[in-house]
Amino acid sequence: MSEVLREAVSAEAALREMNAKTKPLGALGYLETVGVRLAILQNSLEPSVDRARVCVFGADHGISDEGVSAYPRAVTAEMMKNFDRGGAAINAIAQSGSVEVEVINVGVDAELSSLANVRSAVVRRGTRNFANEPAMSDAELDAAIRVGADAGRRAYDDGVRALGIGEMGIGNTTSASALLCALEDVRVEHAVGRGTGIDDDRLAVKRRAVESAVSLHCTRESAPRDVLRCLGGLEIAAMAGAALEGARLGLAIVADGFISTTAVLAALHIARARSNEELESLGRSLFFAHRSAELGHRLVLERCGAFENVDATALLDLGMRLGEGSGAALAMSLLRAGAALMRDMATFESAQISAGDQAEQHGV
Amino acid sequence: MSEVLREAVSAEAALREMNAKTKPLGALGYLETVGVRLAILQNSLEPSVDRARVCVFGADHGISDEGVSAYPRAVTAEMMKNFDRGGAAINAIAQSGSVEVEVINVGVDAELSSLANVRSAVVRRGTRNFANEPAMSDAELDAAIRVGADAGRRAYDDGVRALGIGEMGIGNTTSASALLCALEDVRVEHAVGRGTGIDDDRLAVKRRAVESAVSLHCTRESAPRDVLRCLGGLEIAAMAGAALEGARLGLAIVADGFISTTAVLAALHIARARSNEELESLGRSLFFAHRSAELGHRLVLERCGAFENVDATALLDLGMRLGEGSGAALAMSLLRAGAALMRDMATFESAQISAGDQAEQHGV
Repeated sequence: MSEVLREAVSAEAALREMNAKTKPLGALGYLETVGVRLAILQNSLEPSVDRARVCVFGADHGISDEGVSAYPRAVTAEMMKNFDRGGAAINAIAQSGSVEVEVINVGVDAELSSLANVRSAVVRRGTRNFANEPAMSDAELDAAIRVGADAGRRAYDDGVRALGIGEMGIGNTTSASALLCALEDVRVEHAVGRGTGIDDDRLAVKRRAVESAVSLHCTRESAPRDVLRCLGGLEIAAMAGAALEGARLGLAIVADGFISTTAVLAALHIARARSNEELESLGRSLFFAHRSAELGHRLVLERCGAFENVDATALLDLGMRLGEGSGAALAMSLLRAGAALMRDMATFESAQISAGDQAEQHGV
Repeated sequence: MSEVLREAVSAEAALREMNAKTKPLGALGYLETVGVRLAILQNSLEPSVDRARVCVFGADHGISDEGVSAYPRAVTAEMMKNFDRGGAAINAIAQSGSVEVEVINVGVDAELSSLANVRSAVVRRGTRNFANEPAMSDAELDAAIRVGADAGRRAYDDGVRALGIGEMGIGNTTSASALLCALEDVRVEHAVGRGTGIDDDRLAVKRRAVESAVSLHCTRESAPRDVLRCLGGLEIAAMAGAALEGARLGLAIVADGFISTTAVLAALHIARARSNEELESLGRSLFFAHRSAELGHRLVLERCGAFENVDATALLDLGMRLGEGSGAALAMSLLRAGAALMRDMATFESAQISAGDQAEQHGV
């Protein structure tokens, strides 16, 4: 059935409609692509992103015991309380742009059940330290992915049409770097950066930790799920689950910074291992909010873009490197604008405006 | 008095406040700078861009008789009607981001007084053809600048705190290119691009037209006002007037694409010729929405940035090249987010969050 519906707004039809709008051909650059892609995704020439949401998944990391972060582990819980009170960057940015925020505790190492604005879905209180043992059991990985999938389904049921995936977890750039190294056979110098701002000594510690963990747990033949289980964070697995399920339901999935984009990369690997259909659905849904200042982000964007049907163009490039879904929240206004071009603009014909030279010149 | 007020939120105080927010130092990149700059501009640690507006100034150009555009002159009027009906890109983008649009006819060569949503402030029906004679008289230049200044004042009176300056006028990339060449002694190959999408033949015509007009009207010693009078468009003069007056009133002025940014460049030259105070006020107010795909835009941004207190960082880079204030409308959400960081985020102290390593490491 979805195949039939999909055919109603083909890529060609969407592009033809955008090209008929009252503007020189292609004059709105990538914003036109956003509009075209949303039309295809929503199977409508009147796409809408009225309701947009960022899910922020929080969890702790065993690997933080190795001294890889500038901040103590307690900061994860403290930031969850900050989200709860509305005092964090994601709260401020989202509110300024009429974007909803849902904060989900998938594994913070603290008692947070009293927080009214944090959804509790704790799989375990932080991953195991992957310097010594796999970060998660198989059941824990499944549970974390399911927490994300549930969030994707909830968003869809609520009428949300674009879902940003964000995170909070002290130590999680280390986990994401290890995932990038293992999934894409990348060298640590290219994947491991300064995260929240560590100095040279900590950076050396972090690189050694990643290198040894990857060789401890993974080979080039490891299945993507196993890589995620051994090196991932609970919040990273949840983000992957949200991306997969959200995409299946036709939501636009908006990746945020390095960690979020690495979760998307893991989801792409998992989808490819499962079926062409799932991979295609995920690729069609993905938008990339920004190019962050964190070292590995450019690389992970590039690797996502290497998947056949993934358009890994970054919408923003403001030197941000915070996480929390902050970039995804900011990018929602660009998705809304792209949808508005397709939905609200007149065509040359409807507005009776003289076409220029190029109307005939350009095929596309 | 304004000096006393201004001191209440010094640059140092604004930066200190931003650095106390619950995020690693500098982790929100240029968005932090936006927040800091808005705090200084509004003299408040709780800056707000709740009301944002884009003014779209429309006018025709005598130079369009030379065949420099892909579209016939009539398209200016047709697009004004499209703005009036809400069918243009600027309408769609602005509405999607809760940005107000005010369309002002400063010199379209058509009878448009019946349009309910277009403000009539016609100085004359299009400029003279600057291939042969100065585009405007002195009185016409003054009148056009005043139309813009009035729009800046109106915005301020309405409670608008960020003003985008946009334009519509077939032939106006030719005018803007000529201004850039004359104001900055730039070669035509670097300043004259394809505008709405002309072919190679027209591009050659356009370059010759610009080259000969600049040498006809200007010397290296020409006063900025005279350059604007001879080569400018009525809408370009109006944008310069809006920028100068809006800045004087403390609004954030958001430049759009090539033509809008060239108007800002002209305003900077005019302000410098008048007084240090006016130049400083303008520089402090300027934000640059995006880096457009039009050839001269990168160069004009660079030249604006060469003024001492101008931060010419482009907020977006999406390959847009439409004008109409479309980029400025899109960038308003980034200004709002920057203001929200400063206004709404908790500090480490207020949120009782453990500071990281870097709190001591970084001076700024």
